[in-house]
Parts: sequence; C-alpha cells; structure tokens
Amino acid sequence: MATANSTQEKRVLSIQSHVVAGYVGNKAASFPLQLLGWEVDPVLTVSFSNHTVSPPSVHALCYGRWGGSKFDAAHLEDVFSALDANGLLRQSHLLTGYVPGADALKVVVRAVDRLRAVNPSLVYVLDPVMGDDGRIYVSESVIPIYKALLPRATCATPNYFEAELLTDVKILDAASLQLALRTFHERYRIPNIVISAVSLPVSELAKLGFVDASSLVDRAPTSRMLVCSGSTITSAPGEPLTTVSFGIAFPELAEHYEGVGDVFSSLVVGRFPSSAEPAFAAHPVSPLAHTVELAIASLQGILGKTRQHALSLVKARPDMIVPREGETADERVRRLRTVELRLVQSQQEILNPVVQYRAVRFSGVPSS
Amino acid sequence: MATANSTQEKRVLSIQSHVVAGYVGNKAASFPLQLLGWEVDPVLTVSFSNHTVSPPSVHALCYGRWGGSKFDAAHLEDVFSALDANGLLRQSHLLTGYVPGADALKVVVRAVDRLRAVNPSLVYVLDPVMGDDGRIYVSESVIPIYKALLPRATCATPNYFEAELLTDVKILDAASLQLALRTFHERYRIPNIVISAVSLPVSELAKLGFVDASSLVDRAPTSRMLVCSGSTITSAPGEPLTTVSFGIAFPELAEHYEGVGDVFSSLVVGRFPSSAEPAFAAHPVSPLAHTVELAIASLQGILGKTRQHALSLVKARPDMIVPREGETADERVRRLRTVELRLVQSQQEILNPVVQYRAVRFSGVPSS
Repeated sequence: MATANSTQEKRVLSIQSHVVAGYVGNKAASFPLQLLGWEVDPVLTVSFSNHTVSPPSVHALCYGRWGGSKFDAAHLEDVFSALDANGLLRQSHLLTGYVPGADALKVVVRAVDRLRAVNPSLVYVLDPVMGDDGRIYVSESVIPIYKALLPRATCATPNYFEAELLTDVKILDAASLQLALRTFHERYRIPNIVISAVSLPVSELAKLGFVDASSLVDRAPTSRMLVCSGSTITSAPGEPLTTVSFGIAFPELAEHYEGVGDVFSSLVVGRFPSSAEPAFAAHPVSPLAHTVELAIASLQGILGKTRQHALSLVKARPDMIVPREGETADERVRRLRTVELRLVQSQQEILNPVVQYRAVRFSGVPSS
Repeated sequence: MATANSTQEKRVLSIQSHVVAGYVGNKAASFPLQLLGWEVDPVLTVSFSNHTVSPPSVHALCYGRWGGSKFDAAHLEDVFSALDANGLLRQSHLLTGYVPGADALKVVVRAVDRLRAVNPSLVYVLDPVMGDDGRIYVSESVIPIYKALLPRATCATPNYFEAELLTDVKILDAASLQLALRTFHERYRIPNIVISAVSLPVSELAKLGFVDASSLVDRAPTSRMLVCSGSTITSAPGEPLTTVSFGIAFPELAEHYEGVGDVFSSLVVGRFPSSAEPAFAAHPVSPLAHTVELAIASLQGILGKTRQHALSLVKARPDMIVPREGETADERVRRLRTVELRLVQSQQEILNPVVQYRAVRFSGVPSS
C-alpha cells in the first residue's frame, strides 16, 4: 500500500518555540509555509505566553513578563520516538530554530540523524538561534553542539552575531563578510550558507560588487545598509573549494520587529532551490540567490505592511514604535503589540513577492 | 497611545491541543482561521506527537502510539496570568476545544470570566470535546464543568454524543434532535447552539421540514443522512422562549477523518454572524444558518479533496481507507496518514466555499 510519503510531498518538520501571542518560532514559521502549500509538522521546544527574547536580566527588546515552560530533553525524545515508531519521521525538509538548552539540542541532533537515515535527500535548514546584537540568549553550552550540527545541514541561516560565534570571524566590512561565508564552507563543509543581515557602511558595498552603491544610499535613511549574503559550494567533494557568493542590500529600519529572523528562515525552507522549478537554475547568480531574493521580497512586504499598520495605530508618530532607552514594561508591551508582524494580513506578499532588491554576485575573493 | 486592540481587530484566543503530525485541535483550527484573516493566539492544552483520540484501551480510530505530555493546570494558569499581566488577554473571540482534565478546565473557566470582564462583547464558541460515537475520552469529571461553562458561551458546537451528555436527551429522530436543541437553550440559556452531525434515517428528514427528502436519498450511499443542526434564541430575556432552528443534510462517508470537528468549530468562529456583514442578516433562515452553511461547505470541500487524494494514494481501492475491524497498529497508522486532512491544499475551499447543502428551517415544534 502506498503512503503519503511515497508521493514526495512537500512536508517540513519544524523544531522551534511556541508562543500564544505574537510571532516567533513555529508561530512565525508555520503560517507562511502552509500558505506556500507545505505540510508543516511543528515540534515545540517551549510553550510560552509571549516572546521572552532573553534571560530575565536583559529586557531591552522584549516583553517584561511571560509564563509557560520549556520542554525538557525527555519530552522531545518521547515525541520523536513516537513519531518514528509511527513512521511519521519521513519529512522531505527539516527546519530547526530556537532550542533552549544543550540536552534538548542533543536530542535534536539524534532526530536529524534519524531523518537523514530514513530520507538521504533530506533538505535541512539550520537556524542556529543563539543571540543577536552581541548578546547570547541561550546557554553557551549549545555552541559546540551547533558546530557539530552544521556539517549535517544543507543550509544555515545565522544572523551576523551567530555567524561570528560559529566562524570566529568578526564581521565588520566587505572582506570579513566574505571570509565568514567562506569559513562556513571550509570549516563545516556546509553546501549553502545565508547570513541574514549585516549592517555595512555604504562605502563597503562597492567592494562587494554593488555597482550602484551610491544610488542605494539615496534609498537608505542612514549611510549604512543591511546586506543579506549567501554562498553555495560549486566544486565537487575532494576538488579545490569553489563557491558562488552574493549579497542583497536593503535599507535599515529604525524599528525593531520580533520574529523577523524566524519568518526569514521559514521562507528560505519554503523557497529552497528545487530542481523541479526551472526558475532556480535560470537565475543569473545562483539557485540560492533566487531563494533569498524571494524570501527578502516577502519579508520586505510584510515589514512594510506592519510598519504602515503600526503608524496608523500611533497616529503617524514614528517615535512611538522605536525602542526607547528606559521604557517601562507597559510601554514595551504596547510597543511590541503595536509592531507585531502583520503576517496573516500579508498573504499576497508571501505568495507573490515583488522582488525589489536584487542579488549581486560578490566580485572580491576573500583572503583566508 | 492607541493599541492594536482599540481597532476591534479579529483576534481569537484558541485553547486546544497541539500535535506534530496530523490535524486536530489547534493544529486543525489555526490555519483556516489565519487564512480567513484572523489573528490566532493558540493556548496549548497538550503537546503530542500525533492524535491519540482516546485512552490507551480504545484504539479503534487512532494511532497506536504517541508521545508528549499534557499541560497541567499550573502551566495554563501561568500562561494566562502572564498574558493578562501583559494586556494580551483582550481577544474579540474565544474558542475552546480539547482540555484533558477537570483541573485544567477550571483554569479555562477563570480565563473565560477574565476575558469577558475585559471585553463584555466577547464571542465565545465552546466545543465541549468529550467523546464520540458513544465513548467518552476525557475524564468524566469535566462534564459538570462544561455544564457550568455553557451559560458563559455565545455558541456551543457539540457532536451528537456530547449533546446527549449535556442535555440528557437521547438523539434518535427528528423530535429528539429538536428537543436537544431546545434543551440547550432552556437549561443553559445559551443563545446559539450547533449540533455538528446527527445520523438520521431519511424518513425523519421530512418531519424536520426537508421537502425534497426523497431526492436527497439519491445522493446518499445509504438510507441515512447526516444532519448538522443549529438554533438561536430570538426572544428577549424574561420573555417566553422563542427560537429559530434549522438543519443542513448531507451524505455520510464510509471513511473516518480525524480533526473534522475541530476544523468545523474553527470555521464556526471564523464565520460567526457579524453585524458588519449584511449577508448574515439577509439569510432566509437565520444569521447562524449562514455561518453553518459556509462552514459545512468548506468542510465538504476539504473532505472531497482529502478523499480524492487518499484514493489516489491507494490506487482507487476505497476499502483501504475505511477503518477495518482488527486492523494492526501499522495498518492504522498508514490509513490515518493516508486520510490526513488536505487542509493546506484546500485554501480555495476555505476562502470561497461553494454552498451545495442549504439550511432548512425546522418546521416541527418539539415536545418538552
């Protein structure tokens, strides 16, 4: 008897957090993937009332109070064992995000190996959620486990800070960004890497191959731009390493939106290069560049809608939606509710993204 | 400063189970509601690998094995307290489904009262998930708590068995179905009631007001039909009770699909009568009849797509997707995977249902 799996359906196992209110983790990832036609099997690593972001001592960008609990390693082991016993651990794709501790992450490593054993062509997108803006908000004991996981992944989607933790490269300019990308390939043999956003002075963009860097700056409110970069190994195993790398530059926003990274990694999985779709092979830079252009385009659409809605709520006073030093817990809660992602209202932006920011092939060769 | 809540947005707090694989509870409810433009805040009562349906001793319609855990009352209390402290317990709508025990359900009762205190116009759809087909699969200690909850609800969506437990009316025919509907109004003063599906001989349909009952039977594979019925109080408080009741008849299917009731209750919330939409007031039977017609139409569309997909997987051998006496755990798992609801593939059916089965106003007056 045939099973659903024999039809090679689009099904992703997504191992991330759950929150009641707001959009982070599986709450941010599930809807865009489902809208794009994916079956999503969400394994939950925590169940919280709302986003916590960080340990109780670090509150600058988070709700002040939350309730709920983390799932321990035994719970996750129990869930994976039951899925396996029922033949339900046969997904075509895997996405892992926030896992709060080393013991739970070790259970995830075993699940990855089991999934890969059942389905050798598994596509695994690893978002090594550890921190942001110079702060770690998980146990540091997860870092070596993420390093052991990276060679098992098809693609990773760290932010700049996580990329620094995993490559020991401080990302400050065009050269160090390219070095970080290359270090992922060299150190972990991971075939694809995407660093979600690095803030760079516009002067660095020309060094990366952006020919119209000066025109870009007109669209940016500051002299810096965010660059989302990606790289794919093009050489065969055993051959000298060759890669194709690219960047997509877009303006920085003054506001802080929760869950953007989680929506991004879900869109990278949801739009991952597929040999069945000719548009990927036809892209002038690389199949991965096509993926990331679409993901960034959807995200920009969602953020545009979110910002517009937030401004309508605060009667067009933009200062009310920007994080402020010393804001009270109540102010923080109101601000975060006001800038909550307009995900369910952005179905067209998710389904039919309009690509405004194009991928540019990196021209320089990094020193290593 | 205005908050998102001041805009009267469509936001539903949905208190139900979570499963990794398959569609029941919040996994079944969230996507249809989000697709219809609702913000969904899902509070999870359990986190399981897959559907369990029933205690370990009763396996006929469920996966043979599962893993995960129930959330205890303290966890739920913690989540609700944090939501309340953060001003995040202000939803416009509330949906409650599977809550595994009396202690947890008591926490839900307090959350309902808190929500109603914050928002007196709260719309609360209560799905009193207790059992099906003559079997209870929750602790019997929840029954009196559901009876205490019913007067707090705007609408309840029991299946026939749950309706029997709550009304002490054995539903066997046209008269007892109408009596059960009326008993909900009389005993609990609940303004709206929907009994999701009662299997009735076609001969009973004429007594309910179906003028073309004999033509209906041509569309049914058996001499029985399923009737989804609903009723709304039309009299003012203190006046003698008057109601408008209706039924929608549609064919029974031989297969068993998990999560149908949970999708249905989510569609009742998502399509609940709104004074802002004239189509509800314009319906020839009642606003609730419009809601239920749309919900049934979406569900029939989803089931049609699910059945077609299941048959394609088993090479058009319908016997392979029908529950069989004495099937092994492996056979059960394969069957349930095969008939898993095609929810993400049924976006058009959810967004733009084609109403094929119309509501008929009940003509008889039940004896009481």
